[in-house]
Amino acid sequence: MVAFTKGHGTGNDFVIIEDADGALDLTPQRVQALCDRNFGIGADGVLRVVRSSAIPDGAAALAEEPEAEWFMDYRNADGSVSEMCGNGIRVFVHYLLRSGLADLEAGSTLPIGTRAGVRDVMRSETGYQVDLGRWRLAGGEPLARAAGLSVARPGLGIDVGNPHIVVALASEEELAGLDLNPTPILDPAPSEGANIEFVVPGEPLVRDGVGHVRMRVHERGSGETLSCGTGAVASALAVRHWAGERAPHQWRVDVPGGTLGVRMFPAEDGEHVALSGPAQLVFRGEIDLA
Amino acid sequence: MVAFTKGHGTGNDFVIIEDADGALDLTPQRVQALCDRNFGIGADGVLRVVRSSAIPDGAAALAEEPEAEWFMDYRNADGSVSEMCGNGIRVFVHYLLRSGLADLEAGSTLPIGTRAGVRDVMRSETGYQVDLGRWRLAGGEPLARAAGLSVARPGLGIDVGNPHIVVALASEEELAGLDLNPTPILDPAPSEGANIEFVVPGEPLVRDGVGHVRMRVHERGSGETLSCGTGAVASALAVRHWAGERAPHQWRVDVPGGTLGVRMFPAEDGEHVALSGPAQLVFRGEIDLA
Repeated sequence: MVAFTKGHGTGNDFVIIEDADGALDLTPQRVQALCDRNFGIGADGVLRVVRSSAIPDGAAALAEEPEAEWFMDYRNADGSVSEMCGNGIRVFVHYLLRSGLADLEAGSTLPIGTRAGVRDVMRSETGYQVDLGRWRLAGGEPLARAAGLSVARPGLGIDVGNPHIVVALASEEELAGLDLNPTPILDPAPSEGANIEFVVPGEPLVRDGVGHVRMRVHERGSGETLSCGTGAVASALAVRHWAGERAPHQWRVDVPGGTLGVRMFPAEDGEHVALSGPAQLVFRGEIDLA
Repeated sequence: MVAFTKGHGTGNDFVIIEDADGALDLTPQRVQALCDRNFGIGADGVLRVVRSSAIPDGAAALAEEPEAEWFMDYRNADGSVSEMCGNGIRVFVHYLLRSGLADLEAGSTLPIGTRAGVRDVMRSETGYQVDLGRWRLAGGEPLARAAGLSVARPGLGIDVGNPHIVVALASEEELAGLDLNPTPILDPAPSEGANIEFVVPGEPLVRDGVGHVRMRVHERGSGETLSCGTGAVASALAVRHWAGERAPHQWRVDVPGGTLGVRMFPAEDGEHVALSGPAQLVFRGEIDLA
């Protein structure tokens, strides 16, 4: 029997397994079985809580930041390994704090090892904020076609560690009328695929210095999801890009599963982008891994 | 904190809550929250395990059969009350046996109270078999239209305690090509709606005296599901009806989530139909009901 906790951040949900010493053989088949929503526990992915010192991937994290005691071993529902998950890392930190595995005072940061490098997490008004580091315009503006859209729209390529195409729509009605069950078609198609965000800029776009975007997302390999953390970040970056020089550096992004915050700020190595939002633990249980 | 167990029968999945004395206030809102697949535990419904003597609905069950100690209080994921669930009752009985709340010797039956009356469950080769009682042709042959079908097809109305429309397709390719995300349209539309089964008779239709059907289902109010017990029963009854007098009284129905068995047999009050199939408990846990 393996003990687990189920949690989510804006509806993006995870099976959390504490395995401090890296003793668990978490095969792709086991991850698939755990994440199956009818035959298993059901989740968008698995967060294995393991000491950086206990697994090979953790060595790089400790070399970068000796204080990165805990490593977020994130797996997608299909069993594949993933670098980072913007919603998952908040849930991961919330679990560490609730379980007494780590402390995080207001104003200080907790470094977490990930395959994308060490990420600093701090408390925020709505839960936690994670510095996702640098981002870049990916170049290219593929046309996006989706069910429910009468004509193709140009998308903006943004890379925040993973590839996104952000497509602006005209109204909330148009956004609500989208059918994201069929995978939207990009032309030209990015060679590695992309997450595709459909966004509607708020009206007004800016209120009290905070920009506002509403978004739905089709995640590469997963279909439509209730939330995608890096997708929210890409959406805010795209809309700021379109809005021009006077656009704010703080954004609220409404996703189907809740609300996320995005903040852009200067750092030593260029502009960084941070994601903030809630994290919740829903239940705990135990399962026979077989 | 409330303890629960998660289980399924051919992928039709349930949160099982043991509440022998009927102390739990299981409001529709709580059922919805429990069944939510991202924010809760996630399931097609809740099975409350309660003594017939502990709740008002149980009085009728005990009047019908004094040995019906346990009552299956079944709730749909939307919080509504339901009479019966062909997959759920197997999972319910499996839970009773595993928890030591009841015994069931091979060859004997265990009477379970439900809002559709007392149902007798026995062990079967693949798990459990439940006698669903009498059935009837509902009359009317509405035309069914579904995404992926080029022309409308006539459906056969069958009532097995709840209403079904069974639609025969020409090939497994046609079945696989259906898109059941949009709700299929029935003309004329049954006033109370219906579950709609799309079936392909096996080739050969009968092997070793057992008929074979492959089925996909759109459940009223739920969309496509991996399995529907009464839908499998309706499918076998419809295909037997079409096959004529020499058709067998034992059927294998392949659903997306597994395989179910259907058997028709004479009883004192007319022909009965029984459903058999597996039942599995997947994990246990505890959740704060809030």
